[in-house]
Amino acid sequence: MNHFKTLLVSSIFMAGMSGAAMAGDSAASAKVLIEKAKTSTLGWSIVQSLTTEVGPRLAGSAAEERARDWAVKKLADLGFANVHVEPFEMEGWQRGSIALNVGDPYPQRLVATALGGSIGTPVGGITAPVVRFESLQDLRDAKIGSLKGKIAFIDSKMTRTQRGSGYGQAVQKRSAGPSIAAERGALALLIRSAGTDYQRNAHTGGLRYDDKQPRIPAAALSNNDADQLGRLLALKSDLPLSLSMSSKRIGKVMSGNVIGDIVGSEYPDEIVLLGAHLDSWDEGTGAIDDGTGVAIITAAAKLVSMHAQPKRTIRVVFFGAEEPGLIGARAYVKKHKDELDKIIMVSESDFGSGRIWRMDTGIAKADEAKADAILRVLAPLGVLPGARMASGGSDVSALSAAGTPAITMGQNGWEYFDLHHTPNDTLDKIDPDDLAQNIAVYAAFALMVANTEGGFHPPEKPASEE
Amino acid sequence: MNHFKTLLVSSIFMAGMSGAAMAGDSAASAKVLIEKAKTSTLGWSIVQSLTTEVGPRLAGSAAEERARDWAVKKLADLGFANVHVEPFEMEGWQRGSIALNVGDPYPQRLVATALGGSIGTPVGGITAPVVRFESLQDLRDAKIGSLKGKIAFIDSKMTRTQRGSGYGQAVQKRSAGPSIAAERGALALLIRSAGTDYQRNAHTGGLRYDDKQPRIPAAALSNNDADQLGRLLALKSDLPLSLSMSSKRIGKVMSGNVIGDIVGSEYPDEIVLLGAHLDSWDEGTGAIDDGTGVAIITAAAKLVSMHAQPKRTIRVVFFGAEEPGLIGARAYVKKHKDELDKIIMVSESDFGSGRIWRMDTGIAKADEAKADAILRVLAPLGVLPGARMASGGSDVSALSAAGTPAITMGQNGWEYFDLHHTPNDTLDKIDPDDLAQNIAVYAAFALMVANTEGGFHPPEKPASEE
Repeated sequence: MNHFKTLLVSSIFMAGMSGAAMAGDSAASAKVLIEKAKTSTLGWSIVQSLTTEVGPRLAGSAAEERARDWAVKKLADLGFANVHVEPFEMEGWQRGSIALNVGDPYPQRLVATALGGSIGTPVGGITAPVVRFESLQDLRDAKIGSLKGKIAFIDSKMTRTQRGSGYGQAVQKRSAGPSIAAERGALALLIRSAGTDYQRNAHTGGLRYDDKQPRIPAAALSNNDADQLGRLLALKSDLPLSLSMSSKRIGKVMSGNVIGDIVGSEYPDEIVLLGAHLDSWDEGTGAIDDGTGVAIITAAAKLVSMHAQPKRTIRVVFFGAEEPGLIGARAYVKKHKDELDKIIMVSESDFGSGRIWRMDTGIAKADEAKADAILRVLAPLGVLPGARMASGGSDVSALSAAGTPAITMGQNGWEYFDLHHTPNDTLDKIDPDDLAQNIAVYAAFALMVANTEGGFHPPEKPASEE
Repeated sequence: MNHFKTLLVSSIFMAGMSGAAMAGDSAASAKVLIEKAKTSTLGWSIVQSLTTEVGPRLAGSAAEERARDWAVKKLADLGFANVHVEPFEMEGWQRGSIALNVGDPYPQRLVATALGGSIGTPVGGITAPVVRFESLQDLRDAKIGSLKGKIAFIDSKMTRTQRGSGYGQAVQKRSAGPSIAAERGALALLIRSAGTDYQRNAHTGGLRYDDKQPRIPAAALSNNDADQLGRLLALKSDLPLSLSMSSKRIGKVMSGNVIGDIVGSEYPDEIVLLGAHLDSWDEGTGAIDDGTGVAIITAAAKLVSMHAQPKRTIRVVFFGAEEPGLIGARAYVKKHKDELDKIIMVSESDFGSGRIWRMDTGIAKADEAKADAILRVLAPLGVLPGARMASGGSDVSALSAAGTPAITMGQNGWEYFDLHHTPNDTLDKIDPDDLAQNIAVYAAFALMVANTEGGFHPPEKPASEE
């Protein structure tokens, strides 16, 4: 990274001034933006348009392509410059249908959804006794071959937290579970959804097959149905289940990132990069994951441009194919690898529309005073100082890992995993006032970063989220 | 009705005593029962057993038959006498599958469920422009033949109320809507669910075809999807939809009512009839509709019997085939038409597990003092005096309409129509403390009615719910 060196001169030049003094003008502008954001309906209209006109937009699908067309038109209509798509290839997948039925003596259907990337069952399905494990670790502890002819079921529950930190643990059974079950001989894997609701919606999400193991079908049960299966297994162990899934991998398909700029007046080649992802899982309409992110960063950048041209370029990137594993993020880093030192800041909005309540920084120690100046402006919106360690958020973590400065705007995720990756992720779940608070924060933040004298510099060691 | 005459003698005999004095002994016993009910887990174990071991139990299906087997065993195990099934015939129906898709330029799937009793579409489905109506009345106002080649969509919303009174209006579009749409030429009918939630679950429920009109397929959209369709139609009127349903009517099948008695010590042929229904719609596990009712009346009657033998017989009736239109209720009245004057009281629990907060009476004026004595015992549980007009509840309204005394225990239904007739009607929705309150009320009520000197008499004019 030569980013640090190129900006060293201006950093030294400004060293005698406080962050607050440097931020004076832009702080006043930021406060004006915050007031404007509170009454603007732009963000709502963007997320309504995307979730209504496109709706679900699975990575690599025709729907995701329609979303890119929508995005290009929307950004151009809003006056963004440099609007374009950066296409990339990926492995496609189709959900197909699923049927999961309990056998005698308790015949009944259970609500389940295929995990993203899962193969299907043979035609006619798989009928086998199910074996329950309290946790992924318990499955790991089972002997190799011990699940031959069985369906494995991991029943661990996800913990609800404000920061969503229960997800890190819960997601492991989903991503790694299928191959661990396969290694032990299982014909298929069922998991209790990585989710916190009881609304009879199963939570999908990507799995990762280990190339050394046979691929087996994998699906998630709603929390309600996981409870039901647990009760049934308490009545009769080795209860037979029938699972029929027509999911399949469909080879190479196209996805893409969509980019638009509010060009800077003084340092147009220096970039404040705001990210969100355009794809969604296919059962909801991708409202909180991540239609709100698209709306928040777009409305914020537009509000800045309506107020005054920023000194640096504010770039919005709608990443494609985030859900199958940050595929668009890696494509962006690859394509822009020679320009990463021009990125003065990255931040992604990808955690719903809950209010932002803390700001984490992944920047040089010397720049913390500038972040403090931003925080003083955001404080009336309820934003607290967070950790001095931040990746910037999902897709942009690939950029901060490559050495860019990053700030993560931490949202209240108390209810996020009630909806995440379910059919229930729909427009009605967004609180307009919460959305406006997010836009106010991002608008003020983007403006102040874009106009900060000397810019921001990467942390002394590579960032990783707290 | 000769009920009034046969009990006139004892009524006159007791006329000089107040209701409170008559109820003295049983009031003390009722208070003991209330305390026992608060800590009893019997009701929970009953509803857990039914919803887990049988699960969904569509009227006339093999699952409903398993529910009857379950019920006979459960009542016998609990020591009820006279346990038996009273079978009857009904028209069977199968849900099959459904797919509802929006056409270009906004292709996406919508969440919908077939209405109970609906025919299916032709193989290959129906593709046609959709026409939205604000209300059933607006559909009625459309000219005969004006919907030829179209799909009709009734988009009226249901009002949330504590007593569930929004349902009466909302349900009309579901029951009468299909034939009204057919009369105007529509190929199919879609309705916004008669339900109050936004959890992406569509609410099923029975329709009633008018024999003078052609039968057309009919389905309900979730509230979320009705919103979405409304937004899409605002963007493009006459938007094409494709509806494919494999629902079908399957001719004569068997259902049945299950009956069990706690036999009275002094007047065994006089009956306090507590009702609930055993069938459920087929997508949830019938927890609040009406597993809780089954649990409440059974646990209440059992608690009475554990305390002391009641003077009159307390009968529980688990009605079959309530959901397709009170078919079991009519079968009961028909079979027992010569014994209706022996029924001293009817009351049904079929409104979930929300707390009972009012007691409505459908009894003779002269008996109101006895009802007041019951209310005094129930007051500490939060039960208020209600209207002097009551049917006793869904199935038993056929009995009260035929002239039996009735009391309706009015539950808090604020959240009932969030779950009613959806896949989301599952065990986890029941609050054990609320369930216990219901059981306490019914136990105290059943005992006091069974032991009341002189019994209860029908109201001066046939009862109907307020």
